[in-house]
Amino acid sequence: MRIHNKQYTTIWLTADDELQIIDQTKLPAEFKIVTLKTNEDVCTAISSMQVRGAGLIGVTAGYGVYLLAKNFPGQKDWQEYMQEECDKLLKTRPTAKNLSYALERQAKIWKNFSFNDALPKLRTEALNLANEDIDFCKRIGEHGKKLIEEIAQKKNGQPVNILTHCNAGWLAFTDYGSALSPVYTAFNAGIPVHVYVDETRPRNQGASLTAFELSEHNVPHTLIADNAGGHLMQHKMVDMVIVGADRVTRNGDAANKIGTYLKALAAHADNIPFYVALPSSTFDFSLYDGVKEIEIEERNARETEYITGYYYDEKGQKQVQEVRICPEKTKGLNFAFDVTPHTLITGLITERGIAEANEKAILTLYPEAKQYIQ
Amino acid sequence: MRIHNKQYTTIWLTADDELQIIDQTKLPAEFKIVTLKTNEDVCTAISSMQVRGAGLIGVTAGYGVYLLAKNFPGQKDWQEYMQEECDKLLKTRPTAKNLSYALERQAKIWKNFSFNDALPKLRTEALNLANEDIDFCKRIGEHGKKLIEEIAQKKNGQPVNILTHCNAGWLAFTDYGSALSPVYTAFNAGIPVHVYVDETRPRNQGASLTAFELSEHNVPHTLIADNAGGHLMQHKMVDMVIVGADRVTRNGDAANKIGTYLKALAAHADNIPFYVALPSSTFDFSLYDGVKEIEIEERNARETEYITGYYYDEKGQKQVQEVRICPEKTKGLNFAFDVTPHTLITGLITERGIAEANEKAILTLYPEAKQYIQ
Repeated sequence: MRIHNKQYTTIWLTADDELQIIDQTKLPAEFKIVTLKTNEDVCTAISSMQVRGAGLIGVTAGYGVYLLAKNFPGQKDWQEYMQEECDKLLKTRPTAKNLSYALERQAKIWKNFSFNDALPKLRTEALNLANEDIDFCKRIGEHGKKLIEEIAQKKNGQPVNILTHCNAGWLAFTDYGSALSPVYTAFNAGIPVHVYVDETRPRNQGASLTAFELSEHNVPHTLIADNAGGHLMQHKMVDMVIVGADRVTRNGDAANKIGTYLKALAAHADNIPFYVALPSSTFDFSLYDGVKEIEIEERNARETEYITGYYYDEKGQKQVQEVRICPEKTKGLNFAFDVTPHTLITGLITERGIAEANEKAILTLYPEAKQYIQ
Repeated sequence: MRIHNKQYTTIWLTADDELQIIDQTKLPAEFKIVTLKTNEDVCTAISSMQVRGAGLIGVTAGYGVYLLAKNFPGQKDWQEYMQEECDKLLKTRPTAKNLSYALERQAKIWKNFSFNDALPKLRTEALNLANEDIDFCKRIGEHGKKLIEEIAQKKNGQPVNILTHCNAGWLAFTDYGSALSPVYTAFNAGIPVHVYVDETRPRNQGASLTAFELSEHNVPHTLIADNAGGHLMQHKMVDMVIVGADRVTRNGDAANKIGTYLKALAAHADNIPFYVALPSSTFDFSLYDGVKEIEIEERNARETEYITGYYYDEKGQKQVQEVRICPEKTKGLNFAFDVTPHTLITGLITERGIAEANEKAILTLYPEAKQYIQ
């Protein structure tokens, strides 16, 4: 990923072994790098959404476990300390499967090795998690690119119009992204693409993050209100929808940012292909019925009552300002995700290829999931 | 309607025969009354949305015709002058049928009477249009209340949860409103109601106007992102949806604020009653297929790139501020309305009663529409 024409990932260890992230709450007004020093820093970074997106939440937790191990105060019991601190990490956000996936991978180390033996292994595993995330996202891009290419061939040089919701680009992972990885891969291969970017209230990840990414990569895109997708699809202005996911069950039901379900309904009503892109770390094979079984995070209602943006003051200085958009007495309600039933999903774009959104097809691509079938 | 416990309408003639409105672009941060002195003032008030909402656009145009007649410069040809100025009014916004409805009512006067004879008649007709709007909205409230009452009877004292999109309350008409009129009527009759208020980006009529109205009337309500309705309906947290309309065809297809269609899809998917409330001035019986035939206004993209809200500065002073929410290079696209096909609509709540959303039922309630059938 490029920001101001320089290569970045969303999270990294410095030469001094410090953990750094891009503070995504400041984008697009400001590009700010933050150092996370304690487990509290990491927990706050996840819960306040300085880092967000299924993949990046997982990778941050992976690094977080290494960081808290480094900070182990010798006088405590190693296992007890790790359990306690990892529980804090697990509680930061409930919906993205990648969080528990990364914590489970690291737990296999700290539960089986002493502090001294575990520490270098935890570092390696954190790096592995980040590198797998990059590798999987890259593959998702290659598989998804073929879908875009097929549509492009029917459009005689006209751009393929892709609608996406929230941000499932490189900012949501370590690099490349899930939903946007096929877009970048197609764009880099010279296939004409144009992205309709859903604003994605209340946290505006579309307007502030997806639009930022696409701007930096010079991908043609248009910002739309979350309300607009139905009209655009009804008038065939959208060729396909690609979104990410935070947790996908073994029958293909997909939890993703609130509002995804509405776009899936519109795509289904107008026969527009609707794809969910995800690395395997987002699958929760233990679940079947997503609407009934996936826990949906309820965040602070304040996020619906306020919005943050920037303006230039009389001196021409950029000012970031949070403004209230409703009367003082009005209160909000803020579910962060919704579940799109698999019947509305054309296919899942994974690192192993594209699967139909049903249990049989998913088990064919991921035979290891069979252990969860009773 | 009550604002700060005082009775208002949204538009009125003062004792000095001046035309005044509530400037709705300032709500909820500021309650400001504006005097419209010229036809240009009226055109700007409509196009900039100082007045908005199907009914109020029509009533404002009705008063506008009286105002421009009063300003008639004697040296011009009366009919030519009126035609020219009324054309300006007609062009302010394309989607709401009420605008042309009011202009046609007034044209019957200025086309058939000289300046001197027309002037008092135009004043009377402007007042008639406003009073009919009030009367029709009141009746819509009475008819719609019965629907809410029926649901309430099954809920054993639990509040009826009504989702609405945009603002179709008293601020969108002269008084009472269309979609919110049944809510107020039910609330005033002691039926427990609770309203989920869609924020309604990009112009936030839900957060700024519907929430303001409901706050002033003390109706329990909750602000939600436009993305949330699908999830709430999927989990049966909504008992019914009532929205307004800007133009409804004789087969029941309804143009309303962008995003309405998405909510209708969700209501249909989860068997939740979806009602459109409208006075007869919103019907366009000359049209049949709304998706193909209704003109959808495309407004300035800037509205999607910015948002306006308020904050308190260090001195505790309320400041209204517009902030940009996307990168500088990103451009928006801004369709103001979408069309909900009649197949997704449970019923139309009109001043004459409730009709199913199909040609036969509408023609039964409005036999005068038969002239448009070929």
